[in-house]
Amino acid sequence: MKSIVIEKNILKNNNEIASKIRSALNDKGIYTINMIGSPGSGKTSVLEQIIKHINRKFNIAVIEGDLYTTKDAERIENQGINVVQLNTEGACHLDANMIEQALDCIDINNADLLVIENVGNLVCPASYDLSEDSKILVMSVTEGHDKPLKYPSMFQKAEVLILNKIDLVRYTNFDIGDFYKDVKSLNEHIHIFEISCTSGKGVQKLCDYLEGQIMSKGVNR
Amino acid sequence: MKSIVIEKNILKNNNEIASKIRSALNDKGIYTINMIGSPGSGKTSVLEQIIKHINRKFNIAVIEGDLYTTKDAERIENQGINVVQLNTEGACHLDANMIEQALDCIDINNADLLVIENVGNLVCPASYDLSEDSKILVMSVTEGHDKPLKYPSMFQKAEVLILNKIDLVRYTNFDIGDFYKDVKSLNEHIHIFEISCTSGKGVQKLCDYLEGQIMSKGVNR
Repeated sequence: MKSIVIEKNILKNNNEIASKIRSALNDKGIYTINMIGSPGSGKTSVLEQIIKHINRKFNIAVIEGDLYTTKDAERIENQGINVVQLNTEGACHLDANMIEQALDCIDINNADLLVIENVGNLVCPASYDLSEDSKILVMSVTEGHDKPLKYPSMFQKAEVLILNKIDLVRYTNFDIGDFYKDVKSLNEHIHIFEISCTSGKGVQKLCDYLEGQIMSKGVNR
Repeated sequence: MKSIVIEKNILKNNNEIASKIRSALNDKGIYTINMIGSPGSGKTSVLEQIIKHINRKFNIAVIEGDLYTTKDAERIENQGINVVQLNTEGACHLDANMIEQALDCIDINNADLLVIENVGNLVCPASYDLSEDSKILVMSVTEGHDKPLKYPSMFQKAEVLILNKIDLVRYTNFDIGDFYKDVKSLNEHIHIFEISCTSGKGVQKLCDYLEGQIMSKGVNR
């Protein structure tokens, strides 16, 4: 596993770099996901479940963003996945310049799916295009149903919302009805999947959806 | 309840403003807390518990930081507390300039305790001095025991760590031993309180500690 410490280079325009990367990923037919969510929402656990379900059918590459540690990348590498660690050294989000550096360190030529796991943060990553096809927002029921209106930008920009730790909902005062109503008021077309990485509930349905997206993207290769 | 939309003014130096505010708060003997934590860690619920326990003994004023809504400030105002809402309009942390603006809108002359609830974010708020006596980090067990090493800055800078939602620990794989070991490796002197806002467990102990801090600060008034 390679590990990169990000050099601070904010001179290049993020969107310009993202556009260049997107063009290369499109040429290769690689479906790219930007996974975003609060610390502890379960991004890495969700990714482990996705890998377990679709790893036999598709080639997966992963870019793991984190402030300092390589903990998450180690979890992914343990599943035999091609992964590179991006350490932001305290910066609160990934940007396209970091992704460009990461792609120099990982072979994606055979990849069908590239997953970028962002730094745990429900605010800042919403503003940075990483050249993804889809922003997937991971949120856990233990965070509370009031989060969509309090952090609207992320809910507005995500194509997919994974409502994680659904097995714990019975122990909380999370109001599913209010939650759906608020989310849909911000983003009518968002796809919502309720899942539990502990019980496995909902994972198959999420992976069926992702497989469809990966195949659509790769069809012209 | 007053509500302020923050004007973007990053020209004044944060620490310079914080130092000026700190001097004024010290003159008044007001103990000041900067509450920090991930979205959904339970900052507002913890604050509601603190208010319920110490409101009869001490005068409390609250500055509620949030991206857009007034949801949290309404919860605090419902408890009869003097509160001002700071909306950052998308900015991911509070800064001292915002606190200076908020203090123009709230009467703290009789306050013993000023609580500033920061924007939900485990990364960015660590860097901004808001003139507090104490940074209180709220983290819930459902976020996972790996968070201290992954987000070290906040754990290094906090004087107090509230491990919230302890009633849910039995439904998770949260390892209390590993958690304490990692936290203490980052910050030997941090005070840790395990609490549940649902069952009330640990709240009295936390409030006893805070009452001691408030009285020490106010003793020379």
